[in-house]
Amino acid sequence: MATEATATGGTIAGEEAELDALCRDMAQKAKRAARALATLGPGAKDAWLAAAARALEARGDELLEANALDVAAAPGLGLNAAAVDRLTLNPKRIGEMARSLLEVAALPDPIGEVVRSSKRPNGIDVVQVRVPLGVIFMIYESRPNVTVDAAAIGVKSGNAAILRGGKEAIHSNRALHRILADELAPHGLPEHAVQLVPTTDRAAVGKLLALPEFVDLAIPRGGEGLIRRVVAEARMPVMKHYDGICAVYVDEAADPDVATRIIVNSKAQRPGVCNAAETLLVHRAIAPTWLPEAAKALKAAGVALRADDKARAIVPDATPASPEDWDTEFLDKILAVKVVGSMDEAMDHIARHGSSHTEAIVTRDLATARRFVAHVDSSAVMVNASTRFNDGGQLGLGAEIGISTDKYHARGPCGLRELTSTKWVVYGDGQVRE
Amino acid sequence: MATEATATGGTIAGEEAELDALCRDMAQKAKRAARALATLGPGAKDAWLAAAARALEARGDELLEANALDVAAAPGLGLNAAAVDRLTLNPKRIGEMARSLLEVAALPDPIGEVVRSSKRPNGIDVVQVRVPLGVIFMIYESRPNVTVDAAAIGVKSGNAAILRGGKEAIHSNRALHRILADELAPHGLPEHAVQLVPTTDRAAVGKLLALPEFVDLAIPRGGEGLIRRVVAEARMPVMKHYDGICAVYVDEAADPDVATRIIVNSKAQRPGVCNAAETLLVHRAIAPTWLPEAAKALKAAGVALRADDKARAIVPDATPASPEDWDTEFLDKILAVKVVGSMDEAMDHIARHGSSHTEAIVTRDLATARRFVAHVDSSAVMVNASTRFNDGGQLGLGAEIGISTDKYHARGPCGLRELTSTKWVVYGDGQVRE
Repeated sequence: MATEATATGGTIAGEEAELDALCRDMAQKAKRAARALATLGPGAKDAWLAAAARALEARGDELLEANALDVAAAPGLGLNAAAVDRLTLNPKRIGEMARSLLEVAALPDPIGEVVRSSKRPNGIDVVQVRVPLGVIFMIYESRPNVTVDAAAIGVKSGNAAILRGGKEAIHSNRALHRILADELAPHGLPEHAVQLVPTTDRAAVGKLLALPEFVDLAIPRGGEGLIRRVVAEARMPVMKHYDGICAVYVDEAADPDVATRIIVNSKAQRPGVCNAAETLLVHRAIAPTWLPEAAKALKAAGVALRADDKARAIVPDATPASPEDWDTEFLDKILAVKVVGSMDEAMDHIARHGSSHTEAIVTRDLATARRFVAHVDSSAVMVNASTRFNDGGQLGLGAEIGISTDKYHARGPCGLRELTSTKWVVYGDGQVRE
Repeated sequence: MATEATATGGTIAGEEAELDALCRDMAQKAKRAARALATLGPGAKDAWLAAAARALEARGDELLEANALDVAAAPGLGLNAAAVDRLTLNPKRIGEMARSLLEVAALPDPIGEVVRSSKRPNGIDVVQVRVPLGVIFMIYESRPNVTVDAAAIGVKSGNAAILRGGKEAIHSNRALHRILADELAPHGLPEHAVQLVPTTDRAAVGKLLALPEFVDLAIPRGGEGLIRRVVAEARMPVMKHYDGICAVYVDEAADPDVATRIIVNSKAQRPGVCNAAETLLVHRAIAPTWLPEAAKALKAAGVALRADDKARAIVPDATPASPEDWDTEFLDKILAVKVVGSMDEAMDHIARHGSSHTEAIVTRDLATARRFVAHVDSSAVMVNASTRFNDGGQLGLGAEIGISTDKYHARGPCGLRELTSTKWVVYGDGQVRE
């Protein structure tokens, strides 16, 4: 089709064909690497992780040099101070990346785990075992440590990883990838187990998302725009994370001190993350006594309140809440506050305005706690504990690659197990079906 | 937009809006029903299943009357004799449907099952429990028994079901749905736990597939055209099943009698289903002695062979295989036969031509069996057992709603557990993050 094109058209078509070929080649190599990775035991994978950790520290200068190029280019790309900080590497952060590789090495290998098994009446032995998904395509933004985490979690779970970081971090990511990849073959892993998309051309993402025959899963990690684009274009499953509009419900039977500690921690310990609380729902029976205390503690933690009329009758210096406040992920030290007449009203509010991410109840009443847990349909429901515990490390999964707000395949923090599938294996001695 | 339309355009726009409203209303009702279903224990669900089984038999005449309308209309819809047979109900088939409801009632309830749990160093108790997916939209073709199975499996796993059968079975499906639905409210289940799309308008499918905020999973069951259409249109996950191009590999260390029994059963016991074998791969060391015996047994079972040159040198009356035969799901008593020089060649053939559905090896050698199981990436791998065992009932899952050829979420037979998600629950006494 493109052979008759004009000079310019020919060049564009030629570049397009080149990018097509590059992406297809990467994806095919990843698929072949995935086949080899699937049958490796934990020994080789863990040896690679340990060697990569040592290499990150040994080759720190090479990393810092590459990172300096990204940091120097950052203002030209319009990065603000916070973004430049996230991008910047230093020996401490390199040490943290190395440690995270060792932490992944220390986790149990999910591959080969028996999920279910039985002996059937006809004598066959039936086993469902965990196997890798295959090829994982990770698309992320400026933090270079995601390159290390995604490679480690991907390979440890037996998958080949194709990494695509932001253009702001391209030099850092290339250096990190080089160091990780250099250790693959010496430890018996396929050389294409971890690949970095070499071009910053945005079209490469679309090309790879159109190859479901090679790429088994796409994981976008970043702003909502990136996630929506990946969801719209991907022809394979997408593991993703939308909003975290999390609520804390303080029941009439709450311990007031526990309630204060939990709302302050849920809101203010790290307000910019998805499992931070955005909404406080307070039972009217406890509001008059507890809310003034809570407001004082929240104010001391730097939190501004947006309150409904009933709450403002108790804490008059709070800003009036607007209707949009109930549906907003503030990602900041702002908290929407509402007084409710019953737990049912609180649960209705959560069902209507929440994002099914994380909710918490504070109560001393067992039946109330059980009913809240049963009825609230969120990826994590906390009883007398901070919303901030919805995290792979805190829940005991080890390293995570993100928090899924979907219900299909994975829900909540996604660690090694969430990057696997299963296979049925049947052992018999000649059984057939009647 | 449509208010200024011409008379005809207005009518079409009006019908479109009506269908939109109908589908949205069904989906919303299903979502509300799903919320109520999620918190029901097994008692009410199993009582409904048992009552529905009794009602199917008690109201058999009503069913047969409705079914007679479909059977009478079938020739006009172009159904062939086999399709009319699949459509036809009789007292025996009604009894089978009633029994299948009782079998689902007897299965353990997957909801509330603890998947993982731990106590963390800070004292919180972490539990991952099984919860329903929510609303399941099932799109299927002519067999009316799917209406019963989908309703039973959907509700038992705590999900609301929206059913959309083929227009050939519309009267039968309406009668079945009426009987199942009449038993919902008396047993404490939400009345919209099971809904049947009332119109045969194909556009209704597209409308429901465009409502991911209400419908959590689409399950097409039928021909490839239906499945591809649903995959293309669905904005929610799709549980699906493409080809079953299954192979049996007869190793040099195979027990010849076991090998013959397994290939005959895998191919001929029910050739029209997805877990029937389409390809026989024979090691060259055993081919000269075994293949003539096997060919005789296969011929006796009515199976025609399509063989490569090496196999035809041994069984000369076989038809020469064409290149397409290796990639064809015959769904008939036809078997493609190839002699291979090694197990690696067999596994390469499977990787290139198979559909990752079901493969079998026949061997007495343990190391060979282990290597085949590790390297062959299919939803089920059989060692000295028929491919026909890749089935929910045979593997011990109980009733199944289909066999997934995907790796994400569910792989292989999909029973109750495959229609669930999970939720993290944390119990603490005031813990917060440091």
